[in-house]
Amino acid sequence: MEVLVPFSADRPKSRLSDVLDPDERVAFARTMLDDVLTAIVDAGGRPHVLSTTSIEPDRQDAIVRGPPDPPGTVDTRPLTAAVNAALDDRLSGNGSGGGTASSDPVGVVMADLALATPEALGRLFGAVDDADVAIAPGRGGGTNALVVDTSSFRVDYHGVSYLDHRRIATAAGATVHEVDSHRLATDIDEPDDLAEVLIHGDGATADWLRDAGFDLATTGGRVGVVRE
Amino acid sequence: MEVLVPFSADRPKSRLSDVLDPDERVAFARTMLDDVLTAIVDAGGRPHVLSTTSIEPDRQDAIVRGPPDPPGTVDTRPLTAAVNAALDDRLSGNGSGGGTASSDPVGVVMADLALATPEALGRLFGAVDDADVAIAPGRGGGTNALVVDTSSFRVDYHGVSYLDHRRIATAAGATVHEVDSHRLATDIDEPDDLAEVLIHGDGATADWLRDAGFDLATTGGRVGVVRE
Repeated sequence: MEVLVPFSADRPKSRLSDVLDPDERVAFARTMLDDVLTAIVDAGGRPHVLSTTSIEPDRQDAIVRGPPDPPGTVDTRPLTAAVNAALDDRLSGNGSGGGTASSDPVGVVMADLALATPEALGRLFGAVDDADVAIAPGRGGGTNALVVDTSSFRVDYHGVSYLDHRRIATAAGATVHEVDSHRLATDIDEPDDLAEVLIHGDGATADWLRDAGFDLATTGGRVGVVRE
Repeated sequence: MEVLVPFSADRPKSRLSDVLDPDERVAFARTMLDDVLTAIVDAGGRPHVLSTTSIEPDRQDAIVRGPPDPPGTVDTRPLTAAVNAALDDRLSGNGSGGGTASSDPVGVVMADLALATPEALGRLFGAVDDADVAIAPGRGGGTNALVVDTSSFRVDYHGVSYLDHRRIATAAGATVHEVDSHRLATDIDEPDDLAEVLIHGDGATADWLRDAGFDLATTGGRVGVVRE
């Protein structure tokens, strides 16, 4: 299965600006991408990076540590338009990308799912065996990962996209399977999310955080992080 | 499988005090308990409520709407001591509760897992088929639900209990299976958690929140809630 991985290469992860400086956020985002690409390959998928800008040459090594040289496309449009163009290209042959339509399902997995494992992604990839669309909701109502096995479905990432995607599928007569996964629900956007990486992650992203001085901290409520 | 459901009946859910008054928090906590008990029964489990105080008669109807009259025990001790006493009673026959030890696994499911479905709990209950301990981690490193199928394991809910429980199991020579579920990872503790109930819940808790005027609100980052 081909798996699109949208990646915002310019000024990524702004909501981590309280704990990481701009250069660190770039390095951190690319390290997460690397973990995601590795997990996709290990789950049997073929990743294709949809990047908002081309990867700077001096940093390209960071992006290809996992699977060697993953294919990619630069698309400067917003997320929804870029993903739908890629889905058009793969699923209906109407796109401008020169792709050939096929009946194979196509995945879309966000680049900041640093907790994703081959097992979790395998559940996602297998969920379209009995549904037209499989969705792994993100915490807060986003759509962190999905697989599309029908040409009648398109994405809309604005707002509470998990609920919107269910409505879009229903309107298109497509069946939906919810993939219930904490690992896939956890996109790493905010400082509290870093604790999840330190608790559950065993890839390059967890190593990166530990090298940068982050550690778990038990405060009044849930566990957070401190930086030494 | 018998499933212990620890329930803090006095002054519950203090971290929701910004959005719910004390009486509302009591009613809300009991509504969540009701949803959890219903899901356990529908998953084939036999719930046993471990409550910190006896249920006030005039509110008992709220607690028994799901399964009729679930059996329960009042234990005023802190969570860890109360759960370990109940596990002792069931798994090794050393407890003072008068129970009889058996070789059946025992579950422990928190009373605030308002998103729990029979499917998610079924994955948890089935996970001890190939492990001594099955754990569904909570967001922030807690242990939201577990099943114990060995007399050598006891709980410790302080700190990052998910990691502690893995260590305790390893030290006891017990195998552990992680149950990767967003629904079981989402304990409803803080205002942002209420959005998860409105997005994913289809039980009494979601109805209660809507009746109380809560609705989803898209702010700058993730989706939250507003109260009208």
